[in-house]
Amino acid sequence: MCVVDVGNGTVQTSTVGNSSNIAWHRCSVGKSERQELLNQKGCVVWITGLSGSGKSTLACALGHALHARGKLAYILDGDNCRHGLNSDLSFKAEDRAENIRRIGEVAKLFSDAGVICIASLISPFRKERDACRALLPEGDFIEVYMDVPLQVCESRDPKGLYKLARAGKIKGFTGIDDPYEPPLNSEITLHQGEGVCDSPNTLAEVIVSYLERKGYLEA
Amino acid sequence: MCVVDVGNGTVQTSTVGNSSNIAWHRCSVGKSERQELLNQKGCVVWITGLSGSGKSTLACALGHALHARGKLAYILDGDNCRHGLNSDLSFKAEDRAENIRRIGEVAKLFSDAGVICIASLISPFRKERDACRALLPEGDFIEVYMDVPLQVCESRDPKGLYKLARAGKIKGFTGIDDPYEPPLNSEITLHQGEGVCDSPNTLAEVIVSYLERKGYLEA
Repeated sequence: MCVVDVGNGTVQTSTVGNSSNIAWHRCSVGKSERQELLNQKGCVVWITGLSGSGKSTLACALGHALHARGKLAYILDGDNCRHGLNSDLSFKAEDRAENIRRIGEVAKLFSDAGVICIASLISPFRKERDACRALLPEGDFIEVYMDVPLQVCESRDPKGLYKLARAGKIKGFTGIDDPYEPPLNSEITLHQGEGVCDSPNTLAEVIVSYLERKGYLEA
Repeated sequence: MCVVDVGNGTVQTSTVGNSSNIAWHRCSVGKSERQELLNQKGCVVWITGLSGSGKSTLACALGHALHARGKLAYILDGDNCRHGLNSDLSFKAEDRAENIRRIGEVAKLFSDAGVICIASLISPFRKERDACRALLPEGDFIEVYMDVPLQVCESRDPKGLYKLARAGKIKGFTGIDDPYEPPLNSEITLHQGEGVCDSPNTLAEVIVSYLERKGYLEA
């Protein structure tokens, strides 16, 4: 017999029988090796804001801007994850919290893989966003607040959800009959509204510049 | 107002007021673009087998072999995920199934990101493994069966779990008082036992060769 896994990637090889030949090695590929390979640092860009504030659009533009620079980014979208990982969850309060918790955990895995993970979800509560932040090393959780007034989001109403919420057909809708807690210390705040109007690419560049300044676009 | 997310990465920009300027674009970075960037194809190498069969050791060796070729791989380990994503789950049957389901979903995300995802977990039931396989495009789920006799795994007993199971201190332990269903059509079977004894690196090369032959090591 030869290979014994003693947990945590540590390996003991031994020859049982005539001789005893024990060698140890550790799993030698870790986050820093993956980062070297990719020439970037894994992190999580967490985009929070009301429905209709432009989170998905920004995530997409950011993914494009990073790819254009040869960087590997991946978008975790709150809605999309509900078709897969979180398909067992409803929209009641505790399930919404679990939805966010799981996306935070998966984002952490992507970050550990060396990927720039872009999470895009309403995530209305500070406590839940901060719990996701706490999963990551200092600095690696970059909170981006889409600061768009409710009336602007509601006038856009891209999915017709505000209309349904106003009609009472959706209960507990963030901004209508459920609160949104704006970040107090987000790394980046993007003000958009009636008067302020930047293209998604312009907004994405704000984040790219931040990542560059903080050293995330090199290993 | 300017940016409207109409779902699914489709964007409508419009200038409200004097002029109306509507443009559409799709989220232009997808799996194939990420694969081009990485010069590999995303897939899932799913390593199944008894406790002590050498799954983690193989996963580690495979991760190393791929990294040495400049490929981005990431290991999802059944035990490790229980500290994070699946920390809410117990070891009762339905929770073990949910543990596997979630890892399958996360593996799918990594594969979609272009990463070669190495999932290493006992995953004793065909039905559950096949459900994970069904999440992925044809060919992208590569099942690797660590075919090691129970008595060999038990004699290794790297974590002392067989001892505890035999003493009745762990209930429902795979191989002791809970069944393991060997794959019927795994892509790769690695026989190891008393007589057959290959190093983890040798076993990893079997998988690397498979990936190479099937075109996963280029875009």
